[in-house]
Amino acid sequence: MPVKNQPLSGNTMPRFGGIASMMRLPVVSSAQGLNAAFIGVPLDTGTSHRPGARFGPRQIRAESCLLRPYNMATGAAPLDALQVADLGDVPINTYTLAKSLPIITDFYAQVLASDCIPLTLGGDHTITLPILRAVAARHGPLALVHVDAHADVNEDMFGESIARGTGYAADDFDWPRQQGFTVVPAHEVWYQSLAPLMERVRRHLGDTPCYLSFDIDGIDPAYAAGTGTPEIGGLTVPQALENVRGCRGLNIGGADLVEVSPPYDPSGNTALLGANLLFEMLCILPGVPIR
Amino acid sequence: MPVKNQPLSGNTMPRFGGIASMMRLPVVSSAQGLNAAFIGVPLDTGTSHRPGARFGPRQIRAESCLLRPYNMATGAAPLDALQVADLGDVPINTYTLAKSLPIITDFYAQVLASDCIPLTLGGDHTITLPILRAVAARHGPLALVHVDAHADVNEDMFGESIARGTGYAADDFDWPRQQGFTVVPAHEVWYQSLAPLMERVRRHLGDTPCYLSFDIDGIDPAYAAGTGTPEIGGLTVPQALENVRGCRGLNIGGADLVEVSPPYDPSGNTALLGANLLFEMLCILPGVPIR
Amino acid sequence: MPVKNQPLSGNTMPRFGGIASMMRLPVVSSAQGLNAAFIGVPLDTGTSHRPGARFGPRQIRAESCLLRPYNMATGAAPLDALQVADLGDVPINTYTLAKSLPIITDFYAQVLASDCIPLTLGGDHTITLPILRAVAARHGPLALVHVDAHADVNEDMFGESIARGTGYAADDFDWPRQQGFTVVPAHEVWYQSLAPLMERVRRHLGDTPCYLSFDIDGIDPAYAAGTGTPEIGGLTVPQALENVRGCRGLNIGGADLVEVSPPYDPSGNTALLGANLLFEMLCILPGVPIR
Amino acid sequence: MPVKNQPLSGNTMPRFGGIASMMRLPVVSSAQGLNAAFIGVPLDTGTSHRPGARFGPRQIRAESCLLRPYNMATGAAPLDALQVADLGDVPINTYTLAKSLPIITDFYAQVLASDCIPLTLGGDHTITLPILRAVAARHGPLALVHVDAHADVNEDMFGESIARGTGYAADDFDWPRQQGFTVVPAHEVWYQSLAPLMERVRRHLGDTPCYLSFDIDGIDPAYAAGTGTPEIGGLTVPQALENVRGCRGLNIGGADLVEVSPPYDPSGNTALLGANLLFEMLCILPGVPIR
Amino acid sequence: MPVKNQPLSGNTMPRFGGIASMMRLPVVSSAQGLNAAFIGVPLDTGTSHRPGARFGPRQIRAESCLLRPYNMATGAAPLDALQVADLGDVPINTYTLAKSLPIITDFYAQVLASDCIPLTLGGDHTITLPILRAVAARHGPLALVHVDAHADVNEDMFGESIARGTGYAADDFDWPRQQGFTVVPAHEVWYQSLAPLMERVRRHLGDTPCYLSFDIDGIDPAYAAGTGTPEIGGLTVPQALENVRGCRGLNIGGADLVEVSPPYDPSGNTALLGANLLFEMLCILPGVPIR
Amino acid sequence: MPVKNQPLSGNTMPRFGGIASMMRLPVVSSAQGLNAAFIGVPLDTGTSHRPGARFGPRQIRAESCLLRPYNMATGAAPLDALQVADLGDVPINTYTLAKSLPIITDFYAQVLASDCIPLTLGGDHTITLPILRAVAARHGPLALVHVDAHADVNEDMFGESIARGTGYAADDFDWPRQQGFTVVPAHEVWYQSLAPLMERVRRHLGDTPCYLSFDIDGIDPAYAAGTGTPEIGGLTVPQALENVRGCRGLNIGGADLVEVSPPYDPSGNTALLGANLLFEMLCILPGVPIR
Repeated sequence: MPVKNQPLSGNTMPRFGGIASMMRLPVVSSAQGLNAAFIGVPLDTGTSHRPGARFGPRQIRAESCLLRPYNMATGAAPLDALQVADLGDVPINTYTLAKSLPIITDFYAQVLASDCIPLTLGGDHTITLPILRAVAARHGPLALVHVDAHADVNEDMFGESIARGTGYAADDFDWPRQQGFTVVPAHEVWYQSLAPLMERVRRHLGDTPCYLSFDIDGIDPAYAAGTGTPEIGGLTVPQALENVRGCRGLNIGGADLVEVSPPYDPSGNTALLGANLLFEMLCILPGVPIR
Repeated sequence: MPVKNQPLSGNTMPRFGGIASMMRLPVVSSAQGLNAAFIGVPLDTGTSHRPGARFGPRQIRAESCLLRPYNMATGAAPLDALQVADLGDVPINTYTLAKSLPIITDFYAQVLASDCIPLTLGGDHTITLPILRAVAARHGPLALVHVDAHADVNEDMFGESIARGTGYAADDFDWPRQQGFTVVPAHEVWYQSLAPLMERVRRHLGDTPCYLSFDIDGIDPAYAAGTGTPEIGGLTVPQALENVRGCRGLNIGGADLVEVSPPYDPSGNTALLGANLLFEMLCILPGVPIR
Repeated sequence: MPVKNQPLSGNTMPRFGGIASMMRLPVVSSAQGLNAAFIGVPLDTGTSHRPGARFGPRQIRAESCLLRPYNMATGAAPLDALQVADLGDVPINTYTLAKSLPIITDFYAQVLASDCIPLTLGGDHTITLPILRAVAARHGPLALVHVDAHADVNEDMFGESIARGTGYAADDFDWPRQQGFTVVPAHEVWYQSLAPLMERVRRHLGDTPCYLSFDIDGIDPAYAAGTGTPEIGGLTVPQALENVRGCRGLNIGGADLVEVSPPYDPSGNTALLGANLLFEMLCILPGVPIR
Repeated sequence: MPVKNQPLSGNTMPRFGGIASMMRLPVVSSAQGLNAAFIGVPLDTGTSHRPGARFGPRQIRAESCLLRPYNMATGAAPLDALQVADLGDVPINTYTLAKSLPIITDFYAQVLASDCIPLTLGGDHTITLPILRAVAARHGPLALVHVDAHADVNEDMFGESIARGTGYAADDFDWPRQQGFTVVPAHEVWYQSLAPLMERVRRHLGDTPCYLSFDIDGIDPAYAAGTGTPEIGGLTVPQALENVRGCRGLNIGGADLVEVSPPYDPSGNTALLGANLLFEMLCILPGVPIR
Repeated sequence: MPVKNQPLSGNTMPRFGGIASMMRLPVVSSAQGLNAAFIGVPLDTGTSHRPGARFGPRQIRAESCLLRPYNMATGAAPLDALQVADLGDVPINTYTLAKSLPIITDFYAQVLASDCIPLTLGGDHTITLPILRAVAARHGPLALVHVDAHADVNEDMFGESIARGTGYAADDFDWPRQQGFTVVPAHEVWYQSLAPLMERVRRHLGDTPCYLSFDIDGIDPAYAAGTGTPEIGGLTVPQALENVRGCRGLNIGGADLVEVSPPYDPSGNTALLGANLLFEMLCILPGVPIR
Repeated sequence: MPVKNQPLSGNTMPRFGGIASMMRLPVVSSAQGLNAAFIGVPLDTGTSHRPGARFGPRQIRAESCLLRPYNMATGAAPLDALQVADLGDVPINTYTLAKSLPIITDFYAQVLASDCIPLTLGGDHTITLPILRAVAARHGPLALVHVDAHADVNEDMFGESIARGTGYAADDFDWPRQQGFTVVPAHEVWYQSLAPLMERVRRHLGDTPCYLSFDIDGIDPAYAAGTGTPEIGGLTVPQALENVRGCRGLNIGGADLVEVSPPYDPSGNTALLGANLLFEMLCILPGVPIR
């Protein structure tokens, strides 16, 4: 077995040095030969409140330099088995949201054509729609595992969703439920491990192709201050980790981590959290061994 | 039934636009015809440590623009039943604390004379005393539900109190207990839902007129960094929400949210938390329907 | 002569208290009877780099509470002679720049129809274009006094422009020059009073109707860190003040102050500078007396 | 019994005033006659990522002004029984880590020679090694209670350790285990009180001389943003308090709180947390009465 | 000649280490034997806008650790000739401004009784009044050299004042002028050295006992963001230095540097500027040699 | 003539997108074929006060995305004539300063062996010494143009130096003067253009090989807050630009920009200033045409 790409070692270059790529992996220009790739989508013109997520991919890459290749909590060793690289950013159109959507879909269609699983650094949550179009075109109807403070789901999908926040009417969550979503309000899982919920999700979804979309505002602002539309009372980081780790075994065709807005967290810690969650997504992809 | 005041819609004006009033409700100059009103008290000359709470009402109003009219977690729809508005700020005396107290009491006496329930945006915790004087003058002896990191209770009241922090002597909490307070130290409720505690509170207080005073430093600084005298080991936001939501059914004559100090949280998230808690207070007022 | 609107006095309400309107002037919903009005345009979807100017109007209003009605440096007393108010914000479309432009033009057309001079709180610099369309429709061909770090001028106008920054080619400033602009690179006026330049401007423009567009990034980032596309080596604040004060005597039909981006200056001082420049613009309008 | 040193009272001098010493205790130049002493070690040249811990002692002292002498949660009254003071900082060598180590060991050897228990304000975690050398020279083989996000243990010791984070290989924690450490990964104690774990620790260690080393990055970045190598998914503050409080009864010969990096938390709240944990360490020293 | 107090050397203790005293000079409790002393007055209850100056003395001391004993620009070597120390803070009353004033006057009366010149670390500008009362009681009628953005002068004094800012009426500066003040508006000295002005001041004042009161808001917010009532268009730092240095030769009986508000400049640079200006004040005291 | 490397266009990829390289130029691993190269040296273990310059290269690269290829002020078009790229960072040793020096010297020796002029992104000022060793080994005795707040010059060189700050004795600047340096204290050039000074420098140095070392703390903290040892009263940015631009015509063999410390300026503006100064250095290299 050929040696896979590895992060630039801290002995070769201090972690605060070198060009900032995701996990210090090589930056490549094609998905050929890759099993999975990190892709940035620096778009925030779909943000309804505090903008800034356009700088999300850049800061997530910078903070990802602290990541090491082995998951001490789960035993996953993704870079032993998968060929992974950083594919850079999608060249979106800054001024016109409508023009950016097909640019994104086309970019992902090419990546998927190489049998490479895309892991996306957002960008605001709008970007999930054009990505899903590409993934659905490749894999057919998809289940969606969706973590978000808000009920902004898209189109003809079914799946699981965690959400919370004030709303406009009692039936705000009814439309997603009618589309086939199971909606779990955050306050129903306060103080609890999400492991049982994720077991139900795995039983429910089986080997249906699915996509994991994680809006960092699903996590409480105490942990993730740097986001565009913060809502109080959100998930804790242990719950967020259980959510992603609980997706191990699902037939994941892609995943994203969206809504990191660097201007609202100068410490960089929200981006560091985002980088960790993207690594956890890599760890649960099909084919990743557990040591 | 005439249509009640509603927040300026995000479709009529983007949330980051328009004059910043509490919940984007109309600003009015009289409590006549109101069932409840938001009132700011921009006073911080009673602060013992980090000042800045004078800017609390202004920033709570700015961040409250994210609030929507319906409570997705509890089903409360307060603006369907109550006429609510923003009454602006009390014109306190910046330089002399003693002169501000009667100004505040007089302002609230007028509001209460219109049968309007005051919901106060602080300001430091000193302001609760002159407000309570007005409420007690209107309703007679009051029970106090009090959340605070410190034991700073006032005068001839009884009630429930959550507190913590280092102290000067073993008997720091004895005086409030002698006044009839039940004091619950924060460390006794770590990791736990506060729902059972609040059930006890409701049984204990019955339909006694009561007042809810919530010092945001009762919540852990991880969630509420922007406050004047932070103490470690405080409530989580889920506990804070359960505390307020658990007051539903009490005979609430007024409530306040104090000690938001904007200079210590440039992200605005502490004020956003304060705005949400004030909305939750509105949701548990007598007469608010649950959908 | 009827008494004109005056700022809410600091004796009536402390400066940090009360609803935040521009200069603590009344908020009104119609330009009827006004000689001049402050208007916010909370749009930043035209920003090419750091977004956030959508929060500019809100923070400029908040910081403007420090302004007093009399200009100690120039002797101008604008509120003695003009009826001025805050007209709130234009309800722009957050997601589609193209839809916002006619909304803005229409709003300003109505204001101008009342013979009210608009003073605009931006928002990014895109907003000047639809405002100019309304002003030109009212007054005919306009001269433009334009301060900016960049050469982004619009359409069929002539005027004066201060600019600087790196560029794409030697002829970056040629197009504006061909349109009739006199371009003054910032480095040509370092260390110097701008009073002589402004005298030339006044001689050159005479009583041509003109518009003053001031991009706060024309000022050095040392003074105005909170902006979207900072450029080093800009004007000092004394130069900026001389620029605006030097427009006294021109036939000003409108003015704007754009590109204040609050997330990049948590101190609020960039917005405070913007608020002061808007007050200086008010002070040089036709009809303002000098005491 | 002679009266012990007490913190400068808030009535004698406001808490924000006066020279900033630890807990507002006297600053002394010798450990003679002291039972315990606070000592700063302003060294961060061993930091692998974000530097700044050199300012840790200064900011911990500044924020410690909020501490009061009595522990409301545990009843401990350490300053009634122990003579405690602030011994200032160790004059480390800023440029050469290797030269600083013997300077630190020598300083602590002198303190220990006076039978004074050192409580250390770090500084990065490197400083624990030279301190342990001095403590082990005094007390013989030591058990180590170690809280840390990382597995960086030292030398020939055994003990208990809480850790987490990504790693380089599946056996990252094996070496400390081979040295006799019990390693408790953080994710095994999520949502749980640490009281049962600490009871096991007390049974296991008995009256063995031991040392408590607490790296503030063992706590989640939500509570402790200001640190050099943050890791997600860490302890909550209640767990951290239970950890320290659970050491009551152990034969503690010294303790440290390391890795507070002030530039990464301008609010000062991470340093405030560090100051509180140092006070809790004082509260569990042998001989401290419980009221 | 006995050796005078010297700052703790950076070789003895790194600059970021050790207890933070002004210029790392000894902290003493009596003015006996001192020629000059630094004194903190941590009061900000007289602040009309952004509070926080109560933390001014503490942060000025912390940042003063960068100061060295010799003035490279002027050649002054104050610590060769004067015995100087840090006298700590005046224990003001936090809650009642009126009670603080006599406390301050009494404290300074004692210092002056030892023939020690007080150099004050503010605190808000209110503190100058009670200090002046003590100085005038000692020295008789005083001239005041006053730098400030605002016209807030006190009582029966004459002197020189630099000021600016918007005002309430054309005659805002008339009252101080009637008291004998020469008022120099800041915009009259833009772009210019203040050396000529200070020469006029020296000629005008001769050897009259005088006092230098420097409000850091006299300097432009670009240099001094951390202050309570910032005004645009202020002095540059070179002008501020020329102002203080130009007081050499005056019969200075005391000086203060007020209105540093740390929460509004987390970088500490405003406090660093304040510390430098206090050192420059020390350098122009009678008896300081020039090398 | 083959086309030279050009920055990634903002049309190809928005400026906030893509991997962050200096000026968005290609990242290469060898100096072969390059006329000039940007090199980062992420070392800050030589910092005496506030650390953080290790993150300087990363943030300078991120902010350099705003640079355009043409210098509007001077007409220089460096990328038309020179082949330029980003060579990444030197893999320094984080823990031992002494080990880093030869690593740096060796790295630069290789770059210089390709006749490539190094332009360095610091890192603290220590790095200039090992770079100069490599440049002097290549070019023989060097003149040094040195801008700094402090007098920290090295070894057997002569040249020009701008400096300021407090010192330890009257002769602090004598040693550099004895080595042949002309020292210009900053206060001697306040309010003035540096063009005349630079003309003298050019006459003095003629075509002697020389090196330009620019410590960003030579610029006033108003413009460059993010640095390790700020000193008040420094150069303005216009003066800094004149300094670099005035080196055009000198026989420059290398240049550096050091001491950008990102944690002390979260806005990124200090790094943006550093990026601009590095571009200006590129613009004055031998062979760069003026359009």
